[in-house]
Amino acid sequence: MNIKDNAPQTPEVTTGPLPASRKIYSSPDGHDDLKVPFREITLTGDEPNLRVYDPSGPYSEEGYVADVEKGLSRLRTAWIMERGGVEAYEGREIRPEDNGNVTGDRLARAFPVHHQPLRGTGDKPVTQYEFAKAGIITKEMIYVAHRENIGLAKARKDAEERIAAGESFGAELPAFVTPEFVRDEIARGRAIIPANINHPEAEPMIIGRNFLVKVNANIGNSAITSSVEEEVDKMVWATRWGTDTVMDLSTGRNIHNTREWIIRNSPVPIGTVPIYQALEKCDGDPVKLTWEIFRDTLIEQAEQGVDYFTIHAGVRLSYVPLTAKRMTGIVSRGGSIMAKWCLHHHRESFLYTHFDEICDLMRSYDVSFSLGDGLRPGSIYDANDAAQFAELETLGELTKIAWDKGCQVMIEGPGHVPMHKIKVNMDKQLKECHEAPFYTLGPLTTDIAPGYDHITSAIGAAMIGWFGTSMLCYVTPKEHLGLPNRDDVKVGVITYKLAAHAADLAKGHPGAQAWDDAMSKARFEFRWEDQFHLALDPETAVRYHDETLPKQSAKVAHFCSMCGPKFCSMKITQDVRDYADRLNEKQDGMAEMAGKFRQLGDEIYIDEEKLAAEKKSNGEL
Amino acid sequence: MNIKDNAPQTPEVTTGPLPASRKIYSSPDGHDDLKVPFREITLTGDEPNLRVYDPSGPYSEEGYVADVEKGLSRLRTAWIMERGGVEAYEGREIRPEDNGNVTGDRLARAFPVHHQPLRGTGDKPVTQYEFAKAGIITKEMIYVAHRENIGLAKARKDAEERIAAGESFGAELPAFVTPEFVRDEIARGRAIIPANINHPEAEPMIIGRNFLVKVNANIGNSAITSSVEEEVDKMVWATRWGTDTVMDLSTGRNIHNTREWIIRNSPVPIGTVPIYQALEKCDGDPVKLTWEIFRDTLIEQAEQGVDYFTIHAGVRLSYVPLTAKRMTGIVSRGGSIMAKWCLHHHRESFLYTHFDEICDLMRSYDVSFSLGDGLRPGSIYDANDAAQFAELETLGELTKIAWDKGCQVMIEGPGHVPMHKIKVNMDKQLKECHEAPFYTLGPLTTDIAPGYDHITSAIGAAMIGWFGTSMLCYVTPKEHLGLPNRDDVKVGVITYKLAAHAADLAKGHPGAQAWDDAMSKARFEFRWEDQFHLALDPETAVRYHDETLPKQSAKVAHFCSMCGPKFCSMKITQDVRDYADRLNEKQDGMAEMAGKFRQLGDEIYIDEEKLAAEKKSNGEL
Repeated sequence: MNIKDNAPQTPEVTTGPLPASRKIYSSPDGHDDLKVPFREITLTGDEPNLRVYDPSGPYSEEGYVADVEKGLSRLRTAWIMERGGVEAYEGREIRPEDNGNVTGDRLARAFPVHHQPLRGTGDKPVTQYEFAKAGIITKEMIYVAHRENIGLAKARKDAEERIAAGESFGAELPAFVTPEFVRDEIARGRAIIPANINHPEAEPMIIGRNFLVKVNANIGNSAITSSVEEEVDKMVWATRWGTDTVMDLSTGRNIHNTREWIIRNSPVPIGTVPIYQALEKCDGDPVKLTWEIFRDTLIEQAEQGVDYFTIHAGVRLSYVPLTAKRMTGIVSRGGSIMAKWCLHHHRESFLYTHFDEICDLMRSYDVSFSLGDGLRPGSIYDANDAAQFAELETLGELTKIAWDKGCQVMIEGPGHVPMHKIKVNMDKQLKECHEAPFYTLGPLTTDIAPGYDHITSAIGAAMIGWFGTSMLCYVTPKEHLGLPNRDDVKVGVITYKLAAHAADLAKGHPGAQAWDDAMSKARFEFRWEDQFHLALDPETAVRYHDETLPKQSAKVAHFCSMCGPKFCSMKITQDVRDYADRLNEKQDGMAEMAGKFRQLGDEIYIDEEKLAAEKKSNGEL
Repeated sequence: MNIKDNAPQTPEVTTGPLPASRKIYSSPDGHDDLKVPFREITLTGDEPNLRVYDPSGPYSEEGYVADVEKGLSRLRTAWIMERGGVEAYEGREIRPEDNGNVTGDRLARAFPVHHQPLRGTGDKPVTQYEFAKAGIITKEMIYVAHRENIGLAKARKDAEERIAAGESFGAELPAFVTPEFVRDEIARGRAIIPANINHPEAEPMIIGRNFLVKVNANIGNSAITSSVEEEVDKMVWATRWGTDTVMDLSTGRNIHNTREWIIRNSPVPIGTVPIYQALEKCDGDPVKLTWEIFRDTLIEQAEQGVDYFTIHAGVRLSYVPLTAKRMTGIVSRGGSIMAKWCLHHHRESFLYTHFDEICDLMRSYDVSFSLGDGLRPGSIYDANDAAQFAELETLGELTKIAWDKGCQVMIEGPGHVPMHKIKVNMDKQLKECHEAPFYTLGPLTTDIAPGYDHITSAIGAAMIGWFGTSMLCYVTPKEHLGLPNRDDVKVGVITYKLAAHAADLAKGHPGAQAWDDAMSKARFEFRWEDQFHLALDPETAVRYHDETLPKQSAKVAHFCSMCGPKFCSMKITQDVRDYADRLNEKQDGMAEMAGKFRQLGDEIYIDEEKLAAEKKSNGEL
């Protein structure tokens, strides 16, 4: 291989648990070989610990020593091999153009370990979709069922009630996620488990409307900035804060080697946009792209273990002119590349004309489709226009073809959309794409706040997550301005975790509110340390608190900095509660007294004489 | 006066325009004496400048020299005097307890200038509501009409169309805001102009569902931290970033003097919660509160010029037990104070029993009511419960009484509410409170993200703003953790401005999208400087950009840091557009060609032979 081992810089990643958290592994009943990870937040006093979903992989174990040079352990290899229907093979040779033809010091070091790739032999199911259709429950399905239940052995007592109290717009959240439910959802195309057979390091997770809303974080170097080390660190960092998948959107040099380091060390599914790398192989000139170059890139990435590919096959030649009068034209990189290609050659794109072959190829590795919205709007002005919706309809047609070919599919969504046009997107996607999972970027609800687009988009993300989107692609504060650094990645992930959680709450997900309740109880009882530990971002919570009241004693005090020691509404409420209790004991019940007041309450002003007379007749005065 | 002039520390405030912005004043036709302020953002090339709403007062004028010791000019005094029906009088004497009985160095310096207070004589209208009911259009009404129209002389051409394209849930946005429309909305109780006759420094603004959604920022010292200087600076700072009103929630010492500095220097209406100061006068013990102390505090603050009072008169004795089983009891400070008082005395609160007198008093100064939601939920668990809604119904009854007394009224709203319960709040408020403007805190859509509650709440704020809330009370990143500093105030205001703007867009406000369009056009055309200048926060936008691409040349480059010079989707789209144009000229129209493709497009795979045959028959090949 034409890869030079230059100055070996091992990526450093953040390890160890979050404050007061510990990693636990739990096995579903009868499946001791499956170790499903959770994070348990230890609370003080008699409070039960809170167990939460945890995509951060082994990095957050106590005392974990990461060996980034070796990669994570390959937990799914045995499952894949025992199912059969796959073969190890030599694999495609890595070529100089895979890394942008760089040499010498500019070439990023290759990942030190080589694994022979696997591919389907074609005589048995390979994809989770094929297994599901064949009625077979895979270990991945059992695993994600347990994971979605946060390790519970049976439904919460109040699950049905909570579902009924939510509003899920026709989703069918189960009280308890069984492996059979998972299988059925996948078979119906309503959920996917992105799980390339060449990425056995990843912990299985599910993306679907009837499961917890998931979050994706984008990372990736560009021609201008960043290195392999930074990107591997960002990937681990993003999972630490809760991202469920990571997309590597690298462009420029060293794409192949960067990606290998990321995948081998990633506990979450990795997505890519293969056309980016294909374009690099054509010196950045879209018109030089060919089906052969693209196909070769798909194989290259499928063998590495990319779990889902964004494929912009819905950008049809006839739709391109529909964008000409837009405010912001085509803002999807993939979309604009394909549009340029289509116009130049005056032909349908090779993604569209070779879609069958793409399906066959992706099926062999169980790479999931993320059908790209190449014509998504890039401004409020362009939202929900003819180009966007024409493409969405085509994505629906392609979904059916991909399913027929045995592939897992999700659909990418906009972009920039004002609030009142969001639900139309969701409803149209469900209808046109036959309930395949929706995976949306934001959407951003206004264009006027660069620097705050994690927020303009979190508004849209929470809403569309509530309406039925299965996974939310994060937006960082740097959107439209620059490349996100480590801090931006964290802010983006936390922002999207809270949006996804707000969506789960509103849908009536039976387990969602337990976390809010634990936080609120801690707040009411002035358990400051518990509040920090329960926060999505404990570090920021404690730092903000300490800016006003840095003393350790303030963390156990029955007051907060907003009100000071004498004047605190929560303290007063506690007094009210105690008082009400005492009244209850002493008198004939506060509630009864309240009832009397309510009877009198139809008048705005209480007739105090009348009240006194009533009290007297009851012997209370 | 018992006030010591100690070390005279003049508050320093930020002055001068935002980058590429200039303050302009525009007069409505026929009203040259009214100078309505706007901010004009200068764009490059042939782009027309963008004029935006601007609540930042004269501080943002070019070269403005603030004389904080003197206060702002008292622009409304003449308007008030010429209407008559008011008298200047001696006013209440300032007492040591008004500043928490502090002396010596701990006493904040008194504001150097004294103005005799005005009050209504009772024989003529004083409040904007009374004028409106009497069919009289005040200068304030003419002023706000021009302000809401962003200075346009007539409706935008596409105004009706834009309103129709939005979804306002029954609001009645006008294509053009006339003074008569303003009068009518105020007379119907659907809008207020908070404008104490003793705060003539403030620039009139309107709060109502059929106008631009407004934002409030809370400031205020507490027993533990901060000073007069900080609070005056924060007030000016908050208006610089766009807050429409400011609430001074000071507790502890020096409340009176701090407030005086703030009001005399504030270009926006100031709100307070008078019970906070009344409580200070009772050594922080709620049970010692009396009607007399409260009444005296109302007079004190009305004479200073507070524009709206939060009055928690809806906390009725019978509702208090409804909160006993809550997760987080009563979290409103005012609510918990009154609840404790009610329980202790086992009586309806003096706010409720003396509501008539409160109205008479507030009418005399045109202090608007902000009827407080003392029983608002403090957690997702408690949202939309019996206590909250019982109080809301009472607030509706009180609204009618206040209107009968001639007062302007708005209603405060929750708090913590999951997304699916937000609209219920809005609809119930409109119904129970007879369309009086709703003024909501957030709401926060999840409890689990302390440190990010500006975001958890911006989601709820944008939604409830869309549904019909008239003013959004900001939440800063420090919510639940500490007191906001200057940076937090800015982040809070910008976050809420973007939420309010997202709401305006979704409602179909005819002027709202012009800003988004200007930004998107600048983005598409790589006018980087214009993008920064159009940003709600230009400083942050340029800083983020410079972190990745600090060179000045990058700001005029036709690429951005996300993609690099070779690979940029926006650049490719421009190429596509040029290409489409050329094709249009050369061929028989790209659109027609596209039409042909569409006809063929019913098949997933284009039959290239068929296409070629068709082209041939058309003479194209």
